[in-house]
Order: sequence, then structure tokens, then C-alpha cells
Amino acid sequence: MSMEKERYRIVFSGSGGQGVITASIILAEAAVIFEGLNAVQSQSYGPEARGGATRADVIISNRDIRFPKVTQPNILISLTQEAYSKFSASIRPGGLLLTDSHFVKHERKVDARQVSLPMYETVLEKCGKAVVYNICVLGAMLGLTRLVSTDSILKVLEKRVPTELLPLNRTAFEVGLSMVEPEARGQRSEVRE
Amino acid sequence: MSMEKERYRIVFSGSGGQGVITASIILAEAAVIFEGLNAVQSQSYGPEARGGATRADVIISNRDIRFPKVTQPNILISLTQEAYSKFSASIRPGGLLLTDSHFVKHERKVDARQVSLPMYETVLEKCGKAVVYNICVLGAMLGLTRLVSTDSILKVLEKRVPTELLPLNRTAFEVGLSMVEPEARGQRSEVRE
Repeated sequence: MSMEKERYRIVFSGSGGQGVITASIILAEAAVIFEGLNAVQSQSYGPEARGGATRADVIISNRDIRFPKVTQPNILISLTQEAYSKFSASIRPGGLLLTDSHFVKHERKVDARQVSLPMYETVLEKCGKAVVYNICVLGAMLGLTRLVSTDSILKVLEKRVPTELLPLNRTAFEVGLSMVEPEARGQRSEVRE
Repeated sequence: MSMEKERYRIVFSGSGGQGVITASIILAEAAVIFEGLNAVQSQSYGPEARGGATRADVIISNRDIRFPKVTQPNILISLTQEAYSKFSASIRPGGLLLTDSHFVKHERKVDARQVSLPMYETVLEKCGKAVVYNICVLGAMLGLTRLVSTDSILKVLEKRVPTELLPLNRTAFEVGLSMVEPEARGQRSEVRE
């Protein structure tokens, strides 16, 4: 992230158990602890949370963050059809919509870059465990946006994850990163603010 | 929580690794999923987060929650001296301040009910593991406030915690509950809004 004024509003959405809250906390911690940025991470639970789509919000900025809720994300990750249906209309024009091809079928056009990847199937194949699915998703998202460096994420994983599970988490992260085209990986984020 | 308008602002504060974010997420989920309330849970990370005190905020209400940040908590839990020093002045008059006697020495009077309990030492003695310290703290806080029912917390633990760790988590929660005087445990919260 360069020193001009930048603010990224990210929503991870899916169902309970997919780990979207943890993914968003890891991203926020990487930005704050290792990149000197500010971040706010939140879960808003209303009546709709009881039946359905879980969402976790992160705002990352090099300035103060006054209002912590995301209304229009510029990066939206949707890991279930329900989450996609509910949130995809809210995406900021020019943003990025990342979905999992195993769970989500695109039903409409949005004014955003739409990327659909078989993250779930790939992480199961390469890691054998769905428990690190969220880390794979984080890898793919980072590969597409480069919001923070991969090193910063790896350092947060080292702090948070029990030693015996660290190799599995690292592999899942690399699997996510490697699903994104190599030519796209080297570039800075194309997401318009 | 009765049906009149009620709103509780809770801040869990401590250091990284004490599990304050997880404790606050469990509380928020219990309120939303099992008690039909609304809740917002958030972490605000600014420059101060890099060196020091971690905090996790929860707002629980039977109405809509528009602004998700807590400025004046009516329930403040501080698990390190640094967190206590930083946040205790912000407590709402008539609120509750819960600290751990192993980590925090009270240095000033606040217009709040101050409760200091040896939660850390007791959970180590009874459970043998510091990893469930946050669950013990949650138990003590629930025993003092009855914000949500203990059943709702236990149901969230059943959903979130791997089966083999469930007995340990249940015990830690009971240990926290049992540290609060039995006569105080049956009453509804005394925390003024």
C-alpha cells in the first residue's frame, strides 16, 4: 500500500464454519502489526445472521478509520450462494468479487472484476483438510490484490497457529496464492477505491 | 435481558494471546443465535495496538445497533495492568470493572463496581491449561452480569470447540462461574445502562 490516501473495505462472506471471521482477523492483524497500517475488523449480527450468511468486515487504511462498518466493499469474497446473493449487489463499482466455483454460480453482472476459483476442491486435494479452507481463500485474495505482503500474513500465522499445524496452514496459503495467474500475482492491486 | 430497551457495551481488554477476541465473539454469538438479540463485535487496531493492549468490543441490544464502536463500556474486563491503565477511566458510571488479581493492581477509584478475581491462577489449578483462560473469564463475567444465559454460552462452545476439547472448555467456564458468590449469581445484572 503506497503512502497516498488509501482505504480498502473488504467483506468475507459465507456460512458458519468456513472461517471467514478468522480470515478477516488474520488480514487485519497483518496490516496493523507488520505493515504499520490501521484496521478495524467487525462482525455485525442482526436477525438475518440467525438463518444464514455470515459476514466479517475489515477496513484497512493508512489514515484514521472513523466509521468501522463496511457498506460498499471494494473487495467482496463470497463462499456460499446465499452470501453471494445477499451481498454482491453492494460491491463498489470497479471492485473485486471473488467466489468459489464449487459453491457459487454467478447469476448477474456486477460492475466489478469477477473471479471464480475452485478453492475448496483444490485445498481438499492438496491439503486433505477443509479446516484450512479459509487460509487458502486468504491466499487467493492476497494473490489477486496484494493488499498486504505475503510475508506479513505468514508472520501472523506463525504467531497464531499451533506449531504442529503451521505447515498445513502455510501450504493452504501457498495453494491459494498459486491459484492466481502468475502474471497477475506480481502486480499491485487493480481494485479502484 | 428483558424486553425494555437495553443496550450493553462490553470491552474485553488484555494482551495478545489471552483470547479476548474469541471470548467476545462467543458472547456475541450466544446473544444473537440463542437469545434473539442483536450484537456487533469488533476490533479496532490503531498505532497503539502494535505495542500493547488488545481490546475487543461487543455491543448487545434488543434494538438495532447503528454505531458499532464502544466509547464508554458499561462492562470492562481488563486482564493486564496496561489494559487496565488505558481503559479503566473510560468506564460508564455505575458499570462493572472485572480484573484479574494476578495481573492487575487497582490504582484509582472508578465510579463502578470493581471486582478482582484470581481467574488465571484458578483456571491453571483446576484445568491445568492457560489456553482456556478466556473461557474462565467469560464464566466469571457471566456469573456477575447474567447478560445471556449460561446455556447459550455452552451451546456456542459445542458448535465452535473440537469435541475432544469440549470438556476442558466446559470446566473452565464452570470454574469462572463458580468464582462469583452464589448469592450474586442468581440475580440479574446490576449494571446500570
